[in-house]
Amino acid sequence: MAVTVAVIFLLCFFSTGRGNNQAHHEESYSTTPTRGQPWPMPQKYSVTTKTYDIDSNNFQFTASGQTCDILTKAFARYKTIIFSPQDTKLRFYPNRFNRVEEGVTGLNVKVQKPCEEYPFLGMDESYELMVPDSNGQATLSSVSVWGALRGLETFSQLITGTPGNGYKINGTTISDSPRFQHRGLLFDTSRHFLGTDVLKKNLDAMAQSKFNVFHWHIVDDQSFPYVSQAFPQMSQMGAYDQMHLYSPNDVKEIIDYARDRGIRVIPEFDTPGHSQSWGKGITDLLTKCYSKGTPTGTFGPIDPTVNSTFQFLNKFFTEIKNVFPDKYVHLGGDEVSFSCWQSNPNITEFMKQQKFGTNYAKLEEYYMQKLIDIMNGLDKGYLIWQEVIDNGAKVKADTVVEVWKGGWQAEMGKVTGLGYQSLLSSCWYLNYISYGSDWNKYYLCEPYNFKGTEAQKKLVIGGEACMWGEFVDDTNVISRTWPRASVVAERLWSAQSVNDSKAAAPRLEEHRCRMVRRGFQAESINGPGYCTPEY
Amino acid sequence: MAVTVAVIFLLCFFSTGRGNNQAHHEESYSTTPTRGQPWPMPQKYSVTTKTYDIDSNNFQFTASGQTCDILTKAFARYKTIIFSPQDTKLRFYPNRFNRVEEGVTGLNVKVQKPCEEYPFLGMDESYELMVPDSNGQATLSSVSVWGALRGLETFSQLITGTPGNGYKINGTTISDSPRFQHRGLLFDTSRHFLGTDVLKKNLDAMAQSKFNVFHWHIVDDQSFPYVSQAFPQMSQMGAYDQMHLYSPNDVKEIIDYARDRGIRVIPEFDTPGHSQSWGKGITDLLTKCYSKGTPTGTFGPIDPTVNSTFQFLNKFFTEIKNVFPDKYVHLGGDEVSFSCWQSNPNITEFMKQQKFGTNYAKLEEYYMQKLIDIMNGLDKGYLIWQEVIDNGAKVKADTVVEVWKGGWQAEMGKVTGLGYQSLLSSCWYLNYISYGSDWNKYYLCEPYNFKGTEAQKKLVIGGEACMWGEFVDDTNVISRTWPRASVVAERLWSAQSVNDSKAAAPRLEEHRCRMVRRGFQAESINGPGYCTPEY
Repeated sequence: MAVTVAVIFLLCFFSTGRGNNQAHHEESYSTTPTRGQPWPMPQKYSVTTKTYDIDSNNFQFTASGQTCDILTKAFARYKTIIFSPQDTKLRFYPNRFNRVEEGVTGLNVKVQKPCEEYPFLGMDESYELMVPDSNGQATLSSVSVWGALRGLETFSQLITGTPGNGYKINGTTISDSPRFQHRGLLFDTSRHFLGTDVLKKNLDAMAQSKFNVFHWHIVDDQSFPYVSQAFPQMSQMGAYDQMHLYSPNDVKEIIDYARDRGIRVIPEFDTPGHSQSWGKGITDLLTKCYSKGTPTGTFGPIDPTVNSTFQFLNKFFTEIKNVFPDKYVHLGGDEVSFSCWQSNPNITEFMKQQKFGTNYAKLEEYYMQKLIDIMNGLDKGYLIWQEVIDNGAKVKADTVVEVWKGGWQAEMGKVTGLGYQSLLSSCWYLNYISYGSDWNKYYLCEPYNFKGTEAQKKLVIGGEACMWGEFVDDTNVISRTWPRASVVAERLWSAQSVNDSKAAAPRLEEHRCRMVRRGFQAESINGPGYCTPEY
Repeated sequence: MAVTVAVIFLLCFFSTGRGNNQAHHEESYSTTPTRGQPWPMPQKYSVTTKTYDIDSNNFQFTASGQTCDILTKAFARYKTIIFSPQDTKLRFYPNRFNRVEEGVTGLNVKVQKPCEEYPFLGMDESYELMVPDSNGQATLSSVSVWGALRGLETFSQLITGTPGNGYKINGTTISDSPRFQHRGLLFDTSRHFLGTDVLKKNLDAMAQSKFNVFHWHIVDDQSFPYVSQAFPQMSQMGAYDQMHLYSPNDVKEIIDYARDRGIRVIPEFDTPGHSQSWGKGITDLLTKCYSKGTPTGTFGPIDPTVNSTFQFLNKFFTEIKNVFPDKYVHLGGDEVSFSCWQSNPNITEFMKQQKFGTNYAKLEEYYMQKLIDIMNGLDKGYLIWQEVIDNGAKVKADTVVEVWKGGWQAEMGKVTGLGYQSLLSSCWYLNYISYGSDWNKYYLCEPYNFKGTEAQKKLVIGGEACMWGEFVDDTNVISRTWPRASVVAERLWSAQSVNDSKAAAPRLEEHRCRMVRRGFQAESINGPGYCTPEY
């Protein structure tokens, strides 16, 4: 990665201040943004000292290779993003580069392979960008349409406004591809519901940082907003109310919207714990808890001892397989509390029959195995939280294990040592807010930073930033997630060596102001400063 | 205070969840909102078991006592607030009270005294509300128009929607007045600029929680967005840029908007420290810092040794007196760093002449005394941060001293022991965010909780919630401030005995959802749950 030119302009800020001095002294990073630099940092990036005019009235995107609706829609979208009044309003920057050459009149996009219908794990996201090319235009080349999407986003970030309401682009050569194939963001729509408009807005924000997986933690104990066609009573009884629902059409819209941006939608239907809301619509699914031999009226995890459970799961996940086109579903499997199982005499009897002794982890394994058999029967891949492995369940060789607890280095060593693909999320729980520039700790968390062989490191397929929903809803989920999640996106996309927070700060500042210009409530995370324009 | 009826409806939430379990176990409060209960809690509040229909098409506000534009505008505003589609959309609540009596057809507002032009320290904010009155209508009585504004807000909060898109109000008798006269919220528009639309939105939010002072920390080291008519160069040179400004018209709009809501605007022009941005437009105002006998090119606090300083301050604060109608201006006086003064040979010489020895607190006192003399000459009252008193400066007997540092109990004892009126803000720095339901600590901070006589307690005139601007701007300042600031508002308005967080939580939840319905991005602070409708 070579950054030939660092573009700097003259704004000075003082970051001391009484507001900081009551209890905390936080490090503040530079709030002097770069200008026309991309986030995340490409693998190879060189900028010349020349800048080129761009004429918004005549600029053309053209496809000279393979094309499809994904590319056509992306051309229209990026034309709006780059040249929209919102993005350009008041975009008056001082510019040190006045050696303006002849203008760049279009971007020629060459995609080699026919478009795939949906993004998938392992899709080719590489691209090359040349501004200008030998014809005085710009060229974007990629193997797949997904790479073209990533390149279009980068291209849009290289363009900046000029004092006279015009546009310029720096002479730039980029050769880029992601370091990890799975770069996810988890939203939790059970603790608080999130409207589809907010979910779409978030997908747009994800595309700006080259995330490629929306991990949709769609249901949990608190509510079941997913409207099942096979079991409509689940949301009728389990949602907060009948205004807090994702209809089949809503779900399709989210999947399509994500697909157009090269983002996979992986739903999580977490069992056997975290399923209180499931039990409202499906009678006898949950374990009845007992106290002194009498049912208490409360319920525990899903009851693995009855056939009806697995008949239900088979039918339910058959629907899920058909609704969500991605190969993978997240099956959860975390935080199963054993106390209710322990209290229930039927479970005790079953444990005896199965010779599990008093090892309830065996019962959990029994449940997960049967669920996994169902998924195998459906030819669907799955992700699971680390506890499933910790409790010793055998899973398919290509299972993806998500590590989320503390002590993640040892866990990543263990999971990859067992030969499973792994995802890291432990260090990226963005819902845990704290005062000040907290992004540095997210930025410096390195997924390879555990003891393991080269082969083990290769099993790390990426990571996920998580925004659990206890304290976020439509009012604040965007501002709390962005641009903090962007930091995780760079860790997962860019080279391992791109890990200097001080160097990243001005580029992150530009990225956040670019999000603000595009209409996102991306919050200030570097201390005093400003964007032009503000939100 | 008597709450005769607690209105409860059936919603159950589970507040456990894996998102919480990585590192923190936070207490979650009830997210089952009350229905039609006011925030902050009135001094006397009793609810009957009867509810009354309200017909949005025919409901009338009438003034049968004194009236003026403030009241007329408030009638129009509350009609919109109560009956707007935004507030009513999807307001479907189960209602346990079906004993509907004849409807309430109007609110009769009786104000005794002619309207005062602007709100002021010590204004009468008391009011009485009776639903229904002896005529089957509702009556709001108050001494002043300010009390009527508070009563209108309370009245609006008692009304709830019904399944059939109608409205109901509980039979209610309220006798109310604030515990403290100064209930402020500080916004800092120097670390980040805030747009006037956001400031107005915030004033609306303040009115909903009965705050009555907008402490506008308008300038600081980082930027000088205030456009001075006498010294336009201050913002020309000292603002972030010429898009980040408060024009004279902007300032007037904010003051008028606040006045209509019974909110005083107290600007803070903090000196002699925190004034880096002042020095950009006013040559020779700041102290030149030296190193080894040579000027370094950097600047320290305002230079108190030259006459030009006080000539400037006299002219500047004469303008401020005329622009801001409130009797009080905040003069700052906090965090003066002595190192630059110590380095400067002219200052050293002046210290010698004045026989200050090496006690630079004396120089600060000298500066503050001269500034205070100017304010006295202008017949303007002033607020100051605690350091001015800590450093021993003599101030006028009716000065208001704001306590903001840690160890506030001792400081409150000291300040009131010296006979000064005091404001508490130490425990209400809302900018210091943390994960979870952090509002409890704000709620339980009791301004009287220091050692002092009755006379000393009487000198506590209130407090301020502070949202310093390092990490907030238009993208997140509303969601981060609300409803957390509302908790401070109840502490400052309601009886000291209203201090049970568990009892407050459901009412706070209703208050926050009411804010959401009214179009404010008030964030979720009680854990999982939902509002109807969402933002």
